Amino acid sequence: MTSAENTFRIGLLGRGTVGGAFATLVPEHADRIEVMTGLRPTISGVLTRSSGSFDEILKRSDLIVELLGGIAPAREYVLRAMRAGRHVVTANKQLLSQHGEELWDVARSEGVQLRFEGAVAGVVPVIRVLQESLAGARIDRVHGIVNGTTNFILTEMARTGMTFAAALAEAQQLGYAEADPSEDVDGRDAAAKMAILARLAFDTPVHLDQVRYEGIEQIQPDDLEYARELGLGLKLIGTAERIGDALSVRVHPAFLYPGHPLASVSGPFNAVTVESEAITEITMSGPGAGGPQTASAVLGDVISAMIPPASTPPTTAVLEIVQDVTSAFYLHLEVADEPGVLAQVAQVLALQGVSVKSVVQKGLGDQARLVMVVHPVLESRFFAAMTQIARLDFLRAPPRAIRVLEEEFG
Amino acid sequence: MTSAENTFRIGLLGRGTVGGAFATLVPEHADRIEVMTGLRPTISGVLTRSSGSFDEILKRSDLIVELLGGIAPAREYVLRAMRAGRHVVTANKQLLSQHGEELWDVARSEGVQLRFEGAVAGVVPVIRVLQESLAGARIDRVHGIVNGTTNFILTEMARTGMTFAAALAEAQQLGYAEADPSEDVDGRDAAAKMAILARLAFDTPVHLDQVRYEGIEQIQPDDLEYARELGLGLKLIGTAERIGDALSVRVHPAFLYPGHPLASVSGPFNAVTVESEAITEITMSGPGAGGPQTASAVLGDVISAMIPPASTPPTTAVLEIVQDVTSAFYLHLEVADEPGVLAQVAQVLALQGVSVKSVVQKGLGDQARLVMVVHPVLESRFFAAMTQIARLDFLRAPPRAIRVLEEEFG
Repeated sequence: MTSAENTFRIGLLGRGTVGGAFATLVPEHADRIEVMTGLRPTISGVLTRSSGSFDEILKRSDLIVELLGGIAPAREYVLRAMRAGRHVVTANKQLLSQHGEELWDVARSEGVQLRFEGAVAGVVPVIRVLQESLAGARIDRVHGIVNGTTNFILTEMARTGMTFAAALAEAQQLGYAEADPSEDVDGRDAAAKMAILARLAFDTPVHLDQVRYEGIEQIQPDDLEYARELGLGLKLIGTAERIGDALSVRVHPAFLYPGHPLASVSGPFNAVTVESEAITEITMSGPGAGGPQTASAVLGDVISAMIPPASTPPTTAVLEIVQDVTSAFYLHLEVADEPGVLAQVAQVLALQGVSVKSVVQKGLGDQARLVMVVHPVLESRFFAAMTQIARLDFLRAPPRAIRVLEEEFG
Repeated sequence: MTSAENTFRIGLLGRGTVGGAFATLVPEHADRIEVMTGLRPTISGVLTRSSGSFDEILKRSDLIVELLGGIAPAREYVLRAMRAGRHVVTANKQLLSQHGEELWDVARSEGVQLRFEGAVAGVVPVIRVLQESLAGARIDRVHGIVNGTTNFILTEMARTGMTFAAALAEAQQLGYAEADPSEDVDGRDAAAKMAILARLAFDTPVHLDQVRYEGIEQIQPDDLEYARELGLGLKLIGTAERIGDALSVRVHPAFLYPGHPLASVSGPFNAVTVESEAITEITMSGPGAGGPQTASAVLGDVISAMIPPASTPPTTAVLEIVQDVTSAFYLHLEVADEPGVLAQVAQVLALQGVSVKSVVQKGLGDQARLVMVVHPVLESRFFAAMTQIARLDFLRAPPRAIRVLEEEFG
């Protein structure tokens, strides 16, 4: 009973996991969306690697959904769609974290919408909340668990005591990790997402290259064992925070106290905490990835584009990107079991102004393990101390350090 | 340097805690909002109980912020403002839960926006997420801790072992409870909020009168003590859920297992979990009340109104409101310490189809306490059993029952 006049035509670029799920979702929800918006959504064309013409699809579409991933040809297609007056919905974190300003500028000058809720944390509505709900708040910090693969691996390692390699294999078997998991486990995927969140939270341009990142490949099962003794849990945490007039954006593994709002986020879930003096903090969590979930976020964006215009405002500040920040650390040392070891380590730390909060020492044959948590300190100072400790002749293995998030807010 | 042409005039009705905070927030953020929207917000008039004329303020405003609370005169003012073509932002849960359909109808027919993020869970963006992010999802259930006063009281009772009355007094002293806390502690405030959430989640009209609610006045310190032994935490939980082709909306105290996404929400915080097959679940949490937080939600709405139009779509379904639902329960009995007591209780439960999951029995002089958790069962069956148990001659006090949320999703 629908005519061409009340049809809303969606051109779909890409039919992988998310694209396929989206193509299924649209007809399933067409009736409800028609009641809501007065328009009936239909997929008017699909571009895959082997079939379809972008120009033909563009001509027949009111809106383009870009789910190709990567930079080329996605960037060109998104630009051409917007210049032809089409709204665009994308879930492409690589594209936005590397060419976001160009795309947002074109969207504004063409008066079209560029929506991207699916690019970060799947269906967890962090993009919309930053762009709209918190448009009136001065944000101080964003903390995120924005990679489901690594959170699943860390959860499994903590739960079973298995190694990183074993947990990764399990994640691959269950579909939580790709055949080539390198961008997930080395932190680069999370870095791209944090670049986007930082851009929105702080109204300053942030490029993926400006985000410092570390992965979880180096995490050992006994790190997690000690963490349990100390009452801590381990997560791959993305942080974007205002430090004076500057901004830090980074991704690294970090221990959390049980009271931290991200401590209870386990398995493949994602979560983001936004802190601001006026609002204290908001935490949002949910499934971070998966075809149907991300497709659901994309569909939410499409529906929003069918009703009201959204806007990514121009940057209002150009904050310096700072690299050296203050962190508390967990430090794990394998040392010879001889007198004076703790004293020498403590002396090196003290010389750099690093103060010890708690310490656990365990004998193990003729060597010992010395595990400690130190109070927050400039990371450069801590790493200087660690370099010196690594040179001490009683050390039996390279020292390992992992950041610890503080329990307290602010 | 601003002229009348690029000014956005806000008429403010009410200058209580939230209104006062909002009046402070606007000038503080005017510069940033002007950069974002191209318009500079100013408060063009304030109506208080003792001063100001609504007609004068309406004439001089582009948008009306209603923070009077209550039904009269708020309802009339909101209607008149919308009929005069003004957008309205309100945080008035009473008004929306009792006259929402009338207001949303007028907003649609007049083509103006009616935004109300501040009405539920303060700055936690649950309204926007239900209206926009999840517009494409078929929602199965909404669970919420939507009253900060009661969550603070329950947190304190669990933490210190104090009584309800003592915890309430502490909440009043700290500003977490009002001088007359009855609407908070009896569950009616949470019921109004759940009516609004249910309306949005299920696209069906829901009036406050259709929400069944219980408060926390009856909770005893030793309920919380046993809960701890059983590994449970106690919250005042609002639930709106699809049951077949019907809907249940209710508010009552309920125990949660530690793995539940709402279990870690403590103190005056609010949180809402939205469940849907396609997305599994999203949880949002943050400060639920307080002048600055709610004012921040109101300002977010104002900014959204300055940029894009929002819409509350017409209801698409008229679902039956169901009263009898399935719940697991905690049951606390004080009984004479004599043989056969457990057997008789178990028989009464079994006759009503209530099955026991775990039980703790403790002697106490010549009487005993029998605490058990039963598997999910229709509430009417459970309460029938409880009525029969109350009549057993070895009972030393009226039985107490509290619902237990299941750990598992779905």
